[in-house]
Amino acid sequence: MWFINTAIVASRVHSAVAPSCRRVFVSTRAVMAKSKFEYVRDFETDDTCLAHCWVVVRLDGRNFHRFAEKHNFTKPNDGRALELMTRCAQTVMTELEDIIMAYGQSDEYSFVFKRKSNWFRRRASKFMTNVASQFASSYVFYWKDYFKDQDLLYPPAFDGRVVVYPSNQTLKDYLSWRQADFFWMLIQRSQLTPAQAQERLQGTLAADKNEILFSEYNINYNNEPPMYRKGTILIWKKIKEVTSKEIKLPGETEEKKVEVTRTRTKPVALHCDIIGDTFWKEHPEILEDDS
Amino acid sequence: MWFINTAIVASRVHSAVAPSCRRVFVSTRAVMAKSKFEYVRDFETDDTCLAHCWVVVRLDGRNFHRFAEKHNFTKPNDGRALELMTRCAQTVMTELEDIIMAYGQSDEYSFVFKRKSNWFRRRASKFMTNVASQFASSYVFYWKDYFKDQDLLYPPAFDGRVVVYPSNQTLKDYLSWRQADFFWMLIQRSQLTPAQAQERLQGTLAADKNEILFSEYNINYNNEPPMYRKGTILIWKKIKEVTSKEIKLPGETEEKKVEVTRTRTKPVALHCDIIGDTFWKEHPEILEDDS
Amino acid sequence: MWFINTAIVASRVHSAVAPSCRRVFVSTRAVMAKSKFEYVRDFETDDTCLAHCWVVVRLDGRNFHRFAEKHNFTKPNDGRALELMTRCAQTVMTELEDIIMAYGQSDEYSFVFKRKSNWFRRRASKFMTNVASQFASSYVFYWKDYFKDQDLLYPPAFDGRVVVYPSNQTLKDYLSWRQADFFWMLIQRSQLTPAQAQERLQGTLAADKNEILFSEYNINYNNEPPMYRKGTILIWKKIKEVTSKEIKLPGETEEKKVEVTRTRTKPVALHCDIIGDTFWKEHPEILEDDS
Amino acid sequence: MWFINTAIVASRVHSAVAPSCRRVFVSTRAVMAKSKFEYVRDFETDDTCLAHCWVVVRLDGRNFHRFAEKHNFTKPNDGRALELMTRCAQTVMTELEDIIMAYGQSDEYSFVFKRKSNWFRRRASKFMTNVASQFASSYVFYWKDYFKDQDLLYPPAFDGRVVVYPSNQTLKDYLSWRQADFFWMLIQRSQLTPAQAQERLQGTLAADKNEILFSEYNINYNNEPPMYRKGTILIWKKIKEVTSKEIKLPGETEEKKVEVTRTRTKPVALHCDIIGDTFWKEHPEILEDDS
Repeated sequence: MWFINTAIVASRVHSAVAPSCRRVFVSTRAVMAKSKFEYVRDFETDDTCLAHCWVVVRLDGRNFHRFAEKHNFTKPNDGRALELMTRCAQTVMTELEDIIMAYGQSDEYSFVFKRKSNWFRRRASKFMTNVASQFASSYVFYWKDYFKDQDLLYPPAFDGRVVVYPSNQTLKDYLSWRQADFFWMLIQRSQLTPAQAQERLQGTLAADKNEILFSEYNINYNNEPPMYRKGTILIWKKIKEVTSKEIKLPGETEEKKVEVTRTRTKPVALHCDIIGDTFWKEHPEILEDDS
Repeated sequence: MWFINTAIVASRVHSAVAPSCRRVFVSTRAVMAKSKFEYVRDFETDDTCLAHCWVVVRLDGRNFHRFAEKHNFTKPNDGRALELMTRCAQTVMTELEDIIMAYGQSDEYSFVFKRKSNWFRRRASKFMTNVASQFASSYVFYWKDYFKDQDLLYPPAFDGRVVVYPSNQTLKDYLSWRQADFFWMLIQRSQLTPAQAQERLQGTLAADKNEILFSEYNINYNNEPPMYRKGTILIWKKIKEVTSKEIKLPGETEEKKVEVTRTRTKPVALHCDIIGDTFWKEHPEILEDDS
Repeated sequence: MWFINTAIVASRVHSAVAPSCRRVFVSTRAVMAKSKFEYVRDFETDDTCLAHCWVVVRLDGRNFHRFAEKHNFTKPNDGRALELMTRCAQTVMTELEDIIMAYGQSDEYSFVFKRKSNWFRRRASKFMTNVASQFASSYVFYWKDYFKDQDLLYPPAFDGRVVVYPSNQTLKDYLSWRQADFFWMLIQRSQLTPAQAQERLQGTLAADKNEILFSEYNINYNNEPPMYRKGTILIWKKIKEVTSKEIKLPGETEEKKVEVTRTRTKPVALHCDIIGDTFWKEHPEILEDDS
Repeated sequence: MWFINTAIVASRVHSAVAPSCRRVFVSTRAVMAKSKFEYVRDFETDDTCLAHCWVVVRLDGRNFHRFAEKHNFTKPNDGRALELMTRCAQTVMTELEDIIMAYGQSDEYSFVFKRKSNWFRRRASKFMTNVASQFASSYVFYWKDYFKDQDLLYPPAFDGRVVVYPSNQTLKDYLSWRQADFFWMLIQRSQLTPAQAQERLQGTLAADKNEILFSEYNINYNNEPPMYRKGTILIWKKIKEVTSKEIKLPGETEEKKVEVTRTRTKPVALHCDIIGDTFWKEHPEILEDDS
């Protein structure tokens, strides 16, 4: 609702003495008792995510098989599409609150909220609809920056879900699961049935698997660019931005061009392995964050 | 995931003898047992909406107070914005499945799914993220059709929720609640505090209320266009579409222009009262639908 | 907690003007802010049953196969055990609140709460644990009244669940489902595998089924007492209780025995069909209750 | 259901290759498709506790203020009642599965299930109803062992709830919260209002608090027996049981009495502090258990 008088916006009363009373609130709606229909609010249910847990929102493109065909995506990976996805994910991280990292591959993206985030009182529905809608509107908004010669024919949808992970290990395993999915995706793009593929690859070493992939499907997994092999990890990094300003210094008559360096925190893309320990050792702040 | 071989897409096995066994399915993922990380799927929870109930998804613009100011919306109602919202809601109804009606006002829209919809096995997260993302991408996609002289400055988000209503009466009361909100919104746009407003209007008749609104806030409620006073109801209607085709009839040498009438079902906008019985009597098929 | 000063018991503040604000309450705990550990209450989740729906709690005896053997229950039905179950169910209905009817068979019992019950703010955990514990303690308490020659060797457990039904039809179908289960139980007590049993009975008429049961398993279904065939329905009925009191009337010197008739409402047992319409037509107050 | 043919009991099919497919099962019910009413099972909801988390079931006596008065409990603590509670809790731990420890005080008891317990597929309703009913039936069953001169007048109920804790720290804090409650219970048994009590005790040191309690309410907290001050912790311990058997050794003609020592694991009661680290350091196996 726009243009509402801020003085009368429904407000939640935080009691200073009661750290646990998140249910203690008085809303303007209640006070106004506007209509006899207000009782329908009793049907709303609480979908609070368990406290102190990692909350993950994963999005998947809806019917992206068809979407990719209609928009002439390059097979098996379209660089423009992957970069647009990452741009949308960066917008989600910047516009929404408390997202500490994200991981994307193909037409899916996972967003990890801070363990102790209290955004929207940790309501799962708020987390996932904000992420899904911000991502989708960004997809259309930034389309032209990536698909210069291809019009967007219709607005796409993304379906999402929330999954809650209670420990660092389970969160890391979730992200490893998504990254490990890549290899299987290559198989899936082949002509084998899953049973055949499994049988074919059963017991072979990693090196052999690559050979098989190469000889049979002409894909040299090791030569694919990292973005295609590893997907995209987004983490917050301090970035130095250098801009030039015209400034008139005291005692001088003319403006002078001065370089101004500003440090901003931005979601930066990496294309590395997150299954092993290396990534987590290099970025300990992600899991240790306790704010 | 795009370009996957459809033969190996995860499939749900429907057992002919077991009407209740919605949990009986075998997925390709399970069969493939891709990685040791698969266990993280155990953390996913079931958010199935109670069977045989009306499922409502309501969206609200996120920070639309700011969004409206930045995009120079007319106060207190911007016709272009309302029409864009409705265009998005129509896209949602057409692209997604099982939505039987919708109701919108200001920057919010509610979508009602068929009582017995089994779309995505009634999972609340699928309902709300598909609606939110389809709505948001449409908002950017159709912006230029309504805001010809105003650029879209940034992609907006919408937050959503699912509420489940067990009976026709509670569904009707929900929609009445949203429509009744309008009157209060006018009050809220005034300078009174809610307590003052309530006191001021307490016990006055409907006619008097309009008078008060007019004399004090210079709003003649009755003269506002219906879209502003009643919001927008979207229901499915059969529409005759007349198109002209060039056809060469047998035995003739030249093509002839022929008018072709085709009947299509489309979401059509109404701006009437849904609090009283009239609307529901005129459209009995909405609540009686049992498919 | 016993012996607490009632003046400081946690209380829920009901706001007269706010029918919907079930979340508006102030607890003593919150006010006292006893310890730094209070935050652990944030992990409690809301399990409110959907408003306006029938709430059913079903109990099943845990490991009652073993329990029945150890306590020498008569096969296939033990009358004493069934009557004890019903006594427990009556105690549950009398001691707890808002149960409108119950249905039991074998070692299970289902309890139906009033549609608009607000007992314990409709929290599922409260409904099911109160029913399960009251039932179990009654089972031991009343054991000796039914098993005069058989000691109770150990205290049994019952597992329970809550299921919510949105309409009268679904509630009736739930109860029909439990009653229809009887026939299949007889089959299950036979030596056929389910597949064989189904094949054997496929397409035969009800009369034939009885014949089959009789000729093959020596059970004449029609001759079994109704309690065994139909289970037990408990509904509230006004019962006239006649007691005699010694009363000294005015102007008289000696006490006189006087019969006093008092009407009380009690849960009364029926053993009739609840699958057809007859039962529901004879007891319209059950489904119509709107208090 | 008792006496059912075990060959046809509903069974869950565990797929060897699919660690994650806990939803893959085929039940006899489904295969039999017993009746047209089976669809009512669709209304059952999943209440699985989040994987890898500590599951706590807490029970409270229902209306135990009245129960204590009717049964002449000693104020403020009745030793017999506390010991009976502990006996019931031990029965719960022994009869049910996967409970790793318990903590009780006054008329409440909390049971902690193993982090990775998969009992009843972690369904909250199964956890809490089994605990509540086993506890309640034991309360009646063992009453006479503790209340020799006081008949049990009616069977009591206990209400329960499930709370899920994601980490060792939050579980320890939960237990600390329950133990810290004791001090406040003493206050509550006084004549002060909570506000007065808080004001009175604000800022005073622990030693002073005891002095206040003593001088004002004549309770010397330090002299109360540990069971009253600390409540009861139940943990599993190996106990040597020595029994004597009559055994005929080879080559001998007469039986001889022989002492047989057997080691059994039993729930043993402690009355110590669990707020500090000492308890957890002495019993590291509780939190480290990963089975």
